[in-house]
Amino acid sequence: MATTIGGIDIEVSFTAIFVQIEGRTQILMTGLKVLLVAGTHGNEINGPWLFEQWEGRQELIDTHGLETVCVIGNPAAFEVGRRYLDRDLNRSFKKELLEASAHIDLEVDRANELLALYGPRGRVPSQLAIDIHSTTSAMGCSLVIYGRRPADLALASLIQARLGLPVYLHEGDASQKGFLVEAWPCGLVIEIGPVPQGVLDAIIVEQTRLAINACLESIAEVISGAVVYPERLIVHLHLGSMDFPRHPNGQLAACLHPSIVGNDWRPLEPNSPIFLRADGEIVHFCSEKSAVPVFINEAAYLEKNIAMSLTRREIWQVEESWIENLHEIVAINEIN
Amino acid sequence: MATTIGGIDIEVSFTAIFVQIEGRTQILMTGLKVLLVAGTHGNEINGPWLFEQWEGRQELIDTHGLETVCVIGNPAAFEVGRRYLDRDLNRSFKKELLEASAHIDLEVDRANELLALYGPRGRVPSQLAIDIHSTTSAMGCSLVIYGRRPADLALASLIQARLGLPVYLHEGDASQKGFLVEAWPCGLVIEIGPVPQGVLDAIIVEQTRLAINACLESIAEVISGAVVYPERLIVHLHLGSMDFPRHPNGQLAACLHPSIVGNDWRPLEPNSPIFLRADGEIVHFCSEKSAVPVFINEAAYLEKNIAMSLTRREIWQVEESWIENLHEIVAINEIN
Repeated sequence: MATTIGGIDIEVSFTAIFVQIEGRTQILMTGLKVLLVAGTHGNEINGPWLFEQWEGRQELIDTHGLETVCVIGNPAAFEVGRRYLDRDLNRSFKKELLEASAHIDLEVDRANELLALYGPRGRVPSQLAIDIHSTTSAMGCSLVIYGRRPADLALASLIQARLGLPVYLHEGDASQKGFLVEAWPCGLVIEIGPVPQGVLDAIIVEQTRLAINACLESIAEVISGAVVYPERLIVHLHLGSMDFPRHPNGQLAACLHPSIVGNDWRPLEPNSPIFLRADGEIVHFCSEKSAVPVFINEAAYLEKNIAMSLTRREIWQVEESWIENLHEIVAINEIN
Repeated sequence: MATTIGGIDIEVSFTAIFVQIEGRTQILMTGLKVLLVAGTHGNEINGPWLFEQWEGRQELIDTHGLETVCVIGNPAAFEVGRRYLDRDLNRSFKKELLEASAHIDLEVDRANELLALYGPRGRVPSQLAIDIHSTTSAMGCSLVIYGRRPADLALASLIQARLGLPVYLHEGDASQKGFLVEAWPCGLVIEIGPVPQGVLDAIIVEQTRLAINACLESIAEVISGAVVYPERLIVHLHLGSMDFPRHPNGQLAACLHPSIVGNDWRPLEPNSPIFLRADGEIVHFCSEKSAVPVFINEAAYLEKNIAMSLTRREIWQVEESWIENLHEIVAINEIN
């Protein structure tokens, strides 16, 4: 933005314009754009439905002055109520796919399109992506972050402090890569369940609404300077995933044991039951240490050979470097 | 079967050969074939999984001496984990589809194939079909019968007396026709939930196993003569289905109210909440009489414009004509 002070033209670059309303600092304008994505999986319908309702009633979610862009991640899959058509869009943001010279498939096209439109160097450049999911697992309202990007950790700590929700830190899994939010400088997944695929559920919708609101409020406070970081972040570090027992022909040889279904986030002790065969034989958790299971019986993970993932709960100090990184990302923008 | 008595060749026709084992009459052989179908909807995976396990361990389900044929209803859809490919197979058994001169689609082909293979005049003629389903609705373990065919009512009364489960009598719905079991002289649906599509659940598998066992035991007792009918059958008569409130563009304008989700079979009183809009407005049940809801929030019914179906609970006397009809069907066969 150009202005003139004392006869000199000056390019002024800043992050936001604030106003004082009733004694509180409010954002009037900021260059930051927050990308909100729902329907990245076309059979997760609660987020997209909330978007539709929000479009009609702006008061449903307070943006706290932030500029937001709402988009359906995979509209072609959403249209037919399937997770994806050719490939899981939320595993398609891999360099080798995005930069392939030949045409690959619909989801890789869509990944490139989303980046061209809303990527950090896209037509409507967004610096921060919130990807809204639902799951058949009893994850409650939770966050998923990928790798240990400092800004993600800072943002997750703010949302956790606000809502008390669990955070799953997914990392080091060679078979699960190319998540959407990894393609933005900062981003996380809101993961809410249990709800069957294709089912609209008022409680899931409300949890989604509250989670989006908490994200936006946290980001707005970072910009306005009103932010207060917690001292600690509780994370659930990905240790690995566990497949179902299988017959030699690949068919499932057992179900998850009823005693663990619905008990995501509850520590699984060594030798406790995990699988149940049709003849009643119990398969026990063969481990010397306890672990915290997540994504127990997520329908979409059957094809990925995942019955559940295992994590280790850790308490981390919120570090200054995380905070600085988040502030850099939300402050790099100019109002043009 | 031909035999010779006193020098005269006689064609002998009978239903079964019995033996006395430890004081109980057991069927040794019968001409009746019971068709057991699972995976009629390709994303309902618990029944097919039980079939696989049963194949490997015959003792899992006692056939009580009956000859059973297990088949995956829609193998092409099951392969890709979708309800159907072109058309709902369980609405494809309509005369106008089955007898069409031109080729229609995969599911109509499959319906004709199932009839050619296992229909009452098929290559492996079966007189009685049990179609095994699961649902995202909290239906528990229940039976669905279509129309008021006397033999179905008799068989349902026996299974209800054995397991105490609710029976939904679907009838008079012009938009929902062509169910698989209607193409067999006698047949009913075992419907079990809640379970998300594509999720294997040990409790659903066990409920399915017990329900199949109860069906087979009941049929075997009809043949052996050990059957004792209950005096009454409690039925839930289909009154109609209710769609979600919709915006003019067809989008859903409300969710089901959380107070009724999970409460299938529990009477819905006049003016009680049924839908909840995103702005918190409640839509009430506008009726002068209470009704019993079923299939509340079944994922697959969204496309059929059904948020739930409403029924009226009635207690019927088990009639002699029902019993006669069931006995005729299980007794029409010859052992060749």
